[in-house]
Amino acid sequence: MSGGYERLKDYAEDVELDTGPKENTSSKQRYFGLGCIVLTAVVLLSILLTGTPDFNTILSGGIFSGDALSAVLQSPIVGPNELKQCPSGLPPLASPPAPVNLWASLTVPETTAIHAWLESSEQNLNLTRADISMISDNVVFMIEAYQPPKAEALAYLSSPKTVPRPDRYARVTIHHGAAQVPFIKDYLVGPMPVSSKTTMRPLTEIYHRDEIPFNAYGFASISELQHFLAQLVEPLGDAMEELFGASARGLPNDTLIAGSSAPFSFDGSFRRMWVTWRHNKPGPYLLPVGFYQYVDISGTDASQWKILKVVYNHQSFPSTASFLDAFHNGTLARLPRRPDQKDSTWTQRKRVGKPRDLDHLPGPRSVSFAGLRFRVDKARQYVSWMGWGMYLAFDRDMGLSLWDVRLKGERVIYQLAPQEAIAQYSGNDPLQTTTAWLDRFFGMGGLVRDMIPGYDCPLEAVYLPATTYSSAGSIKRERAICIFEQDTGKPISRHYGYMEGEFGAVKGYTLTVRSISTVGNYDYLFDYTFHLDGTMEVRVSASGYLQGGFWEDDQKPYGASIRDTTMGNLHDHIINFKVDLDIAGTSNSLLHTTTEQEEVTQPWFDDDWGQTVIQQRIDRNYITNENDALVKYPTNFQGGYAFVNQAEKNAWGNPRGYTIHPGYSPVHNTVVGSKRLFNNANWARYNLAVSRRKDTEPASSSMWNLHLPGAPMVDFHKFFDGENITQEDLVAWVNLGMHHLPQAEDSPNTKTNVATSSFMLSPLNYFDSDISLESMNAIFLHSPEKPGDPYTYDDNGVKQDFTCIPGATPPFVYSNVKTFNLDGEEEAPFSVEKNRERAEMSLRVKAVL
Amino acid sequence: MSGGYERLKDYAEDVELDTGPKENTSSKQRYFGLGCIVLTAVVLLSILLTGTPDFNTILSGGIFSGDALSAVLQSPIVGPNELKQCPSGLPPLASPPAPVNLWASLTVPETTAIHAWLESSEQNLNLTRADISMISDNVVFMIEAYQPPKAEALAYLSSPKTVPRPDRYARVTIHHGAAQVPFIKDYLVGPMPVSSKTTMRPLTEIYHRDEIPFNAYGFASISELQHFLAQLVEPLGDAMEELFGASARGLPNDTLIAGSSAPFSFDGSFRRMWVTWRHNKPGPYLLPVGFYQYVDISGTDASQWKILKVVYNHQSFPSTASFLDAFHNGTLARLPRRPDQKDSTWTQRKRVGKPRDLDHLPGPRSVSFAGLRFRVDKARQYVSWMGWGMYLAFDRDMGLSLWDVRLKGERVIYQLAPQEAIAQYSGNDPLQTTTAWLDRFFGMGGLVRDMIPGYDCPLEAVYLPATTYSSAGSIKRERAICIFEQDTGKPISRHYGYMEGEFGAVKGYTLTVRSISTVGNYDYLFDYTFHLDGTMEVRVSASGYLQGGFWEDDQKPYGASIRDTTMGNLHDHIINFKVDLDIAGTSNSLLHTTTEQEEVTQPWFDDDWGQTVIQQRIDRNYITNENDALVKYPTNFQGGYAFVNQAEKNAWGNPRGYTIHPGYSPVHNTVVGSKRLFNNANWARYNLAVSRRKDTEPASSSMWNLHLPGAPMVDFHKFFDGENITQEDLVAWVNLGMHHLPQAEDSPNTKTNVATSSFMLSPLNYFDSDISLESMNAIFLHSPEKPGDPYTYDDNGVKQDFTCIPGATPPFVYSNVKTFNLDGEEEAPFSVEKNRERAEMSLRVKAVL
Repeated sequence: MSGGYERLKDYAEDVELDTGPKENTSSKQRYFGLGCIVLTAVVLLSILLTGTPDFNTILSGGIFSGDALSAVLQSPIVGPNELKQCPSGLPPLASPPAPVNLWASLTVPETTAIHAWLESSEQNLNLTRADISMISDNVVFMIEAYQPPKAEALAYLSSPKTVPRPDRYARVTIHHGAAQVPFIKDYLVGPMPVSSKTTMRPLTEIYHRDEIPFNAYGFASISELQHFLAQLVEPLGDAMEELFGASARGLPNDTLIAGSSAPFSFDGSFRRMWVTWRHNKPGPYLLPVGFYQYVDISGTDASQWKILKVVYNHQSFPSTASFLDAFHNGTLARLPRRPDQKDSTWTQRKRVGKPRDLDHLPGPRSVSFAGLRFRVDKARQYVSWMGWGMYLAFDRDMGLSLWDVRLKGERVIYQLAPQEAIAQYSGNDPLQTTTAWLDRFFGMGGLVRDMIPGYDCPLEAVYLPATTYSSAGSIKRERAICIFEQDTGKPISRHYGYMEGEFGAVKGYTLTVRSISTVGNYDYLFDYTFHLDGTMEVRVSASGYLQGGFWEDDQKPYGASIRDTTMGNLHDHIINFKVDLDIAGTSNSLLHTTTEQEEVTQPWFDDDWGQTVIQQRIDRNYITNENDALVKYPTNFQGGYAFVNQAEKNAWGNPRGYTIHPGYSPVHNTVVGSKRLFNNANWARYNLAVSRRKDTEPASSSMWNLHLPGAPMVDFHKFFDGENITQEDLVAWVNLGMHHLPQAEDSPNTKTNVATSSFMLSPLNYFDSDISLESMNAIFLHSPEKPGDPYTYDDNGVKQDFTCIPGATPPFVYSNVKTFNLDGEEEAPFSVEKNRERAEMSLRVKAVL
Repeated sequence: MSGGYERLKDYAEDVELDTGPKENTSSKQRYFGLGCIVLTAVVLLSILLTGTPDFNTILSGGIFSGDALSAVLQSPIVGPNELKQCPSGLPPLASPPAPVNLWASLTVPETTAIHAWLESSEQNLNLTRADISMISDNVVFMIEAYQPPKAEALAYLSSPKTVPRPDRYARVTIHHGAAQVPFIKDYLVGPMPVSSKTTMRPLTEIYHRDEIPFNAYGFASISELQHFLAQLVEPLGDAMEELFGASARGLPNDTLIAGSSAPFSFDGSFRRMWVTWRHNKPGPYLLPVGFYQYVDISGTDASQWKILKVVYNHQSFPSTASFLDAFHNGTLARLPRRPDQKDSTWTQRKRVGKPRDLDHLPGPRSVSFAGLRFRVDKARQYVSWMGWGMYLAFDRDMGLSLWDVRLKGERVIYQLAPQEAIAQYSGNDPLQTTTAWLDRFFGMGGLVRDMIPGYDCPLEAVYLPATTYSSAGSIKRERAICIFEQDTGKPISRHYGYMEGEFGAVKGYTLTVRSISTVGNYDYLFDYTFHLDGTMEVRVSASGYLQGGFWEDDQKPYGASIRDTTMGNLHDHIINFKVDLDIAGTSNSLLHTTTEQEEVTQPWFDDDWGQTVIQQRIDRNYITNENDALVKYPTNFQGGYAFVNQAEKNAWGNPRGYTIHPGYSPVHNTVVGSKRLFNNANWARYNLAVSRRKDTEPASSSMWNLHLPGAPMVDFHKFFDGENITQEDLVAWVNLGMHHLPQAEDSPNTKTNVATSSFMLSPLNYFDSDISLESMNAIFLHSPEKPGDPYTYDDNGVKQDFTCIPGATPPFVYSNVKTFNLDGEEEAPFSVEKNRERAEMSLRVKAVL
């Protein structure tokens, strides 16, 4: 064991199986104690030890006295046998509805077996391993689980004991760099495990063009790019040193590093990028020097790569030589000095300033004194809590996804998975104005790193691991996903009433499943939060560094200065989610509700007020054609959208449904028609869209969409081909996002409390009444019989003030991820620099000869 | 002491004064222990007591064994001298910037002294005390603190030691029912304390009409109304019994109770209301029988009150007699039977259904193991936390308000106070279609009741009391306000980076100040939540009962059935807040930001992508005239509104500002032009509005506005009279709200997680960088020197896993509020029925002869 923080043990075998609800079971039976910690005895003991039975000193410690002290003394703080050691912080074992997680990631042995099978001579693929590959080699870029057809999965889930599980397949991406005309191809390999029955066929039905253009490739290695960039700057070394006070000579001790814009291509016919240079200091994203090169890196022959333009201070040069001419002959208009780029403190996360009052104390901490109330099956990546249950899956492109989400035994969501995250920038420099990131390219799952216990998630959170494949091998993170329950601090419902039955409150608790992905500068927190009433919230929050620009006054329309010469550039983040809701079955319709004003009359209206009344009314209609289901939230949110099953009614005759309820920052992308986002992220034009659910439309984007805005592999608009969506299996594509107008407070990092966006999925006549009233963590008060008496109450036997002696938290340890080579062997830990290079690829390139 | 739950003691004198930040002070010095609770000793003791040192049994209790157990045994849970008793749950004492809370409510002795002064013969007011009054008497309706002029308050706050505090005045409302032409008048009485200098003058400058029409009066007593309604139904007794299976005969054992619609008037020329009848069972709001009378209760002579219409099942009758004729002669079209109205279980909050898995355990609980980190000065109602500080005030009309809110010593908000809460309904019956509540009329402060500890607020919340005056005397609630810190469970900022300085996280904590008001059926939770970065969120959540209607198919446009014959009716909630921001002083401007698409060209654009780029740009302009400052959020939230001080720049040259950032459900009222809301709530037409701040415009509404839609006392639009708002003292009037399309899950009560709305006030270039980086509850990780080593880290010495033995929570006690008569004497506790009558007035009237 390499010393990682081990919160989760293999408790599966050890923990008492306890899957059913335990009504009226005394929770005390579940507590274990360190024998009898009788507080009176403890006090006695303390007297013995201190020798001075001075209660006032002992109890007050200078804080309490007088009334407060007597209140404490009167309170039955501790009776005999009461204060015991708290139960373990380990979650009890869950009972998944089926023994197999159909959507689980491939294990390292599985990907290793497939890789070996691909490398075998029978396959004749002429493969080179990535670590020693050139772009002109054939390389396995990706091996990943391919999700089974939904029909097969549902059949299995309906009767896991009798129906065989769907065959398991892998999606394999190969860079055919060695081909006459290089190309990329996706294959379906299976069934698994690898055997004589295993075959391989091109996987094309999920894409909208036949071939994957080679120029859209993902980086299996950046060594050729590093070398090319080093060659590029070598002749510029002196000039850059003079202009920027920092070096880029292609040497290991260079103080500038390169970054790039994207997309690299419009349709795959070329691969070109703007290169920018930044100080190689903490938070380099905020330290651009204002020097740009447009380079052509098309094709597989790096010797053919070339520079197309050099841009500095609004001056464009067709070549390095012409730029150097201007530099030397004095015609180059120079940028002002940038002293704030010398300062390497303000871009750091180190604590600054005077501490706040009482901040030397740790803040409040959430403790499940009676033990965790959610269940986890680590092996199957299954979680359950308060009637909710779900399987987790994890992939390279987008990370965590949720499957077969059930509430009280009934499936509500078949799949909930992020699809893509765009960030489109503005500015007056070549980098910002041409940048429209689609982060799926970089692999938001592959870029998940271990979370920081106690800081990224509450201290008692439970962590689950995730393993993703990359061309260099597999990466395993022990703390890729965290799960925790929280007291929201607010009752989910309450009423103060005077009649018996009216007065009470149900405590608000939620369960959150979180994963955090760091794509170069930005950190995205993905939260899936479940509520007691059947509502769940999907929320993305952003932190990390801005992609900063060079500040000058004419940048005002594109952002704001956040330092003397650094600016934050205006950009939109839009994140798309696939929400495959199954409401009371797979036959669902899209209910569109609007409200508007009407003027009505009634026989009883009176002259006092006129003969008419102006009021609002609801119009409900079903959108029947998916072409009409590319929609925005109505003005003033007057109405909305819901999935309903028209054939399944609740007890009061309303079709059972779930509504898609906008939360924080319910926005879509601002810009329409940019060539950098021409056709590859059309989902971002809407707040949400609903289409017929198809196995051949598993995702609204692909990793190659970034570089193919003009001719994307997945063209979202093609999902909308006029099909009827009445009582069909539907999927909603829902957007979160944020218009980010940067400000000084984004420095050094953006704050998650304001940079946050969410939507809720909430029952809409799905039940007959509020199910959170089932909660035992609730109170119900009875008015006193006699005036002045206190209220009597029923707390369902659940004592909110239950206290025990908390156990210790495992010591804080943070280690690097584990990596496995292509033979499935755990590798020796990498250096920080190596980890950084693997993670950041073109986002932060150290140019080396 | 009447047995109320006493969380807060008079600790003010006892608590160590500790106001400054304590950097690097060992927090251990602050803990007090019950002597030496050495755990090894405890274990020893337990062995002595149990006699069997069987560690396996002791420690595992059937839950742990094997690996898990050994993990526990290996963990350094407790070393010698480590696990001590946790510090007290009492908050340390705060240090307000000035020793006087200028906005504090009047005390009972103060109102008693004023009342006595008013009753003295010198004043010649011919007053009758409310409890024995008729409408035709002169009655003191209200005595309340009148807020000092802002200029005087600021002068005092700028130098509380040298500048005298502003004179203290009371606003007194008298019902002059005994006048020839009855009227209501507001007076300013002061200075206080009452002395020979005390005078009384009409307070008119804050209103937009000279007189307060008597017909808009608030209820000082409802005895005449009860009697009138009893007379009304007496002849209907048999018919109602037959039609509804319940009785309304004006007898104490009646099983129906009355409710009303509002407004009662258009301009004060009459007072008429629709009366509805409901089953007198828990949650009667969901049990209307569908029987309505339109009654005239104008003027002061109840003998002149009369019935104008009777409506039943869409049939309107001009009199009781004509209705009874139709009833007896068989021409009355009858409503169908309503069996669900016999059932008195579904409208209750009693727990239902099968308990969820593990819900027999209490959920996670927030504990400040090292002691509370916020400070409270109970006497002055002042709270401070992490650089924030604020005074609290409380009034009858709207309850809790915040004053002189400072961040790091600098005032950000002078006043933050709710102004009004409207609820406008739709339906096809006389009640819903004519209802547009303005809850200020009922007194949202007067209707605050004690919160339920552990359910309405987290268990360790600190409570503050509030006292409000009513015509019958004063009401004191010990738990009117709660204050608590929470771990949000999410870092406020974080980044995973590879360079020294990039990797770390700041824990997200917030402080919430909450009050809950129950206006008849609905419960409003008002939350003011402060963040570490200078952001604060204002949030209203709703729970309680719907104002239900009678379900029939043609009600579909107006809501949904929530039971066989009960519906939830469509309505809008809009709540207005006064936000008197003072950003770097009182001279502020309103910055309006929008973003839109542009097409630009640059010299370096290439043929690859065309010669232009489409991107977004920011337009910033200042709204200079307040008439242009009645605004809505832009489509797709592309832009927004901020208060900035154009004369005060941050270090990077941007004017310092605070933005008004929409949160959940950023809506305005749907309906425009209804006569029931004609001119009395014009603020509800917008998302927000900004006007010049004036002492003569203290509020956007008044308690009488409800009944004066055509000619309100406060006409919001009159605030907007063309004044320039450039670098002036400005106030924002910001709306929260919810379009409530009811559904089955609103039964029995609406859920606060979906029925919620918020806005944030967030620094906008107010600082030079993110101030939450000052936090000590943060971690900063250093990459390991040697590959494979764990990361080293700096947690600023603040141990997140700090653990101690929690103290006990005071036993749960819930008692009724304390009341004081007009002589300032505490009264004997009232019966539930009496409390109910006082609280609900016209909302739920028991008709008695």
